[in-house]
Parts: sequence; C-alpha cells; structure tokens
Amino acid sequence: MPADVNLPTVLAIDTSGPVAGCAVLKGGKIVHLTAMNHGLTHSETIMPAVDTALEGAGVRCGDVDVFAAVAGPGSFTGVRIGVCAAKGLAHAVGKPCVAVHALEALAMNFYGFDGLCCPILDARRGQVYCAAFDMAGGRPERALADAALPLADFLATLPRERRLVFVGDGVPVHAGAVGEALGGRALIAPPHLRDLRADAACLLAAARPEAWVPAAQLQPIYLRAPQAVRERERRQSDAGV
Amino acid sequence: MPADVNLPTVLAIDTSGPVAGCAVLKGGKIVHLTAMNHGLTHSETIMPAVDTALEGAGVRCGDVDVFAAVAGPGSFTGVRIGVCAAKGLAHAVGKPCVAVHALEALAMNFYGFDGLCCPILDARRGQVYCAAFDMAGGRPERALADAALPLADFLATLPRERRLVFVGDGVPVHAGAVGEALGGRALIAPPHLRDLRADAACLLAAARPEAWVPAAQLQPIYLRAPQAVRERERRQSDAGV
Repeated sequence: MPADVNLPTVLAIDTSGPVAGCAVLKGGKIVHLTAMNHGLTHSETIMPAVDTALEGAGVRCGDVDVFAAVAGPGSFTGVRIGVCAAKGLAHAVGKPCVAVHALEALAMNFYGFDGLCCPILDARRGQVYCAAFDMAGGRPERALADAALPLADFLATLPRERRLVFVGDGVPVHAGAVGEALGGRALIAPPHLRDLRADAACLLAAARPEAWVPAAQLQPIYLRAPQAVRERERRQSDAGV
Repeated sequence: MPADVNLPTVLAIDTSGPVAGCAVLKGGKIVHLTAMNHGLTHSETIMPAVDTALEGAGVRCGDVDVFAAVAGPGSFTGVRIGVCAAKGLAHAVGKPCVAVHALEALAMNFYGFDGLCCPILDARRGQVYCAAFDMAGGRPERALADAALPLADFLATLPRERRLVFVGDGVPVHAGAVGEALGGRALIAPPHLRDLRADAACLLAAARPEAWVPAAQLQPIYLRAPQAVRERERRQSDAGV
C-alpha cells in the first residue's frame, strides 16, 4: 500500500479534451477537484479554475512540488493550452513539470478492473485515438500502443478472452457499435466515470518522479501531426518538394 | 446500454463527509463537478460552489428536474447542511428532491469491479459506518446492510471468496488493519477514487425516479441517533424515566 501522506503536492491541469479540469493533491488527499464540460473556451476557463483550486486548498504556487499537464493525445489546441498553463506556473516558481498521458489518465477511472480498459477519443476523420491498459493490478499497465484508427480496426485488435471497459469522449458516439461488435463482454463507462479527471492525473504525476522535467522541456504528446503540418506536407508532396 | 441523453437534469449536493461537493448532470453528461476537501466549513463553501456549478453549466434552478442530496450516513451536521440546501433550492422552484445513500454513492467509484466494494467511514467511538455492494453487474447491488461496527467485526462478516475493494474516509485510518487482516485479496482505493463524488450521486438520483419526493419530505439517513439524542436517552434511562 502506498504511504499516501508522503506523496508530493501536485497541481494537475487538463484541457486536452472536452472537459477542462484541475486538481490538487496534498498530503495524500485530493483536496480540490474541478471538472467543467461546459462547451466554453478552455483558455478562458482554466486559469480562474486553477486560482479557485489553489486558494480553496490553501496552497500557494510555491508549495507545489510538480505541475502536471495532460499532454495528449487530444485536441491540438486544447493540449497546448494545458501544457502552456502548466509551463507558465512552473517557470514562475522554479518547479518541475510532468506530462501525463491522456489515455492512461482516463484508464485510471477503472483502477483495479479485472480486465482491459480501452480509452477511445473522438479523433474525427472516422478515427478514434485508442489504446488498452490492463487494470487488474490496480494502476494501468500498457496492453496496446496508442493508435489513431477506425473503431472497427481497433476492436478487431482486442483480445477475446478478457473483460473490456470503454471510456472517453468517443463513448457517446461509438457505444452502440462497441455493443454490437462485442456484446456483453464490453462494459460502457457510465457518465461519471467516462471523462478524464484531473485527480487521476495528479496520481500519475506523483507516481513518476523520474518523468519530471524542467518547465521548458514539457512537450505535448501527439499521435498525428497537426492539420496545418499535414496540409503543408501534402502540398510539398504534391509539388514534388 | 442506457440512453444517456434521455437522463434528467440533476443537481447533486454532498456535504455528508469531509468532502463538500456538487455536480450537474445534463444531457447525459456530467457538465460540472466540484469536490473540495479543504477542512473548511461546508455551510460556507457549498452554496458558492453550487452557484458556480449552475452558472458554468448554463443551468438555471428552474431547469433542474431533481435536486439530490447525499443524505447519509455521515456527519450529522454535514448531512443536514446538504439536505437543507437541496430542500431550499427545490422548494424555491417547485421541483422534487431525492436522498442519495452515501455508502452506495461511494461504491459507484468502482462500477463494474469484479467483487464487492466496501465503503468504510470513520464513525469515531472505535466504529466504522460500513456496508458492502456487489459491483460485478455495474451499478452497486446491496450485499451487506449498513452497520456501525468495530472494523474487525465488519471484516469478519465479509465473504472469503470474493475480491474486495475498500473506499471512504475510513481508508486512511484503517488501510493498514485491512491489509493485515485480508492480505492481497483487499484492494485499497487510491486517493482519486477514495472519496464520495457528487457526479456519482447525480447518476443514482437519475436512475431512481420512484424515489423522488416533494422537497418537504426529504429526510436524512442516520445509522445512529445523534449524540444529543443518545445522551438524553441515557439520562432518562439513568433517571429511570
């Protein structure tokens, strides 16, 4: 059992998907958690939420041991908002940052589940960002690498002998297709366990001090190149560059 | 699979334990969640948090279909704060209330867990408020009735052949004793899944329209008589009344 009281003080920020969230871990407890799925602009909502979290928790920026950002995969703009917010705060007080993987953080919602947790994010263009984590030991253990795939291709790669649970913003879109393909062996996360929660990101950040980096080195995690880069590459390819 | 988009709009309030929380379910999504474990006075923090939740979610009180309060078991004063806040809001707009059971809401953190979820709350006086729910089908199915017991007595009643996971504010106090008594068969909820979350209360409220009542009928759920009542009864008994 972890000696929770010895865990570091963590501020985690997530704007990688539809939810804008932040959380504070202090003294082994989640002392503050906010999750907003309002359809509002993350860049406007996240910093006031961070202020409220720190103030409510009685934590100053200088008391934070590490600033965590959910660094993707996810919305390109959203990921950059969260990464930049964490960088800025960490830089201001000379503390480290850590990148938390969005799909792994989502899987934390099914800690201890006796099977695989399969996060699916709506990646548009007919694809899902997807992965699979073995949860039976508690924390997520990687079972399938991140991919951006059509849903059917992802489902075909999943082992047939395990229980499966599906989480993430792809669930409302794809739950019907998952149910048809896999039947009763697939559990669909209910709304309260479907979305990424910043408190899970705090725990992953605390568990991996070896991944903490100086603020300037915090990087987004992308599975596909941003659209602007893809289009530039296509134009260059078309032009024979 | 539940037709989530047909779920009612729910505001849930929880001040029954150390966490003050509120959440809004709308259109089948948790659109806002706050959880504060600041050690501050729930009666001062909960209504501003409700305001922020409704405003952020773009939900007016009149749009809420049911006001849920986590009604216990828990702190006597805390339970009454949450129940009264939900009653007041519901009464003002002529909408129903629903009492959510604290231990059942806690168990929702381990939806789909292949075993029993055992919430333990610190009931002081050497006891825990405790219960057990079978989670294998998804939502909690009652396995053991609520009780206020010494921890060892509770552990002795748990079936030997099932996986068990322990949640609730009794965990930091009793995790060592649970581990010694049960060994590897007992999973201890990590900090992000240990506390009651108001979003789980939203889901339970939405699932039980038959339990919705007029605001005036919302009642706390107590396992023990309040201390004042116990002392009066003892004095009356001592006096031979």
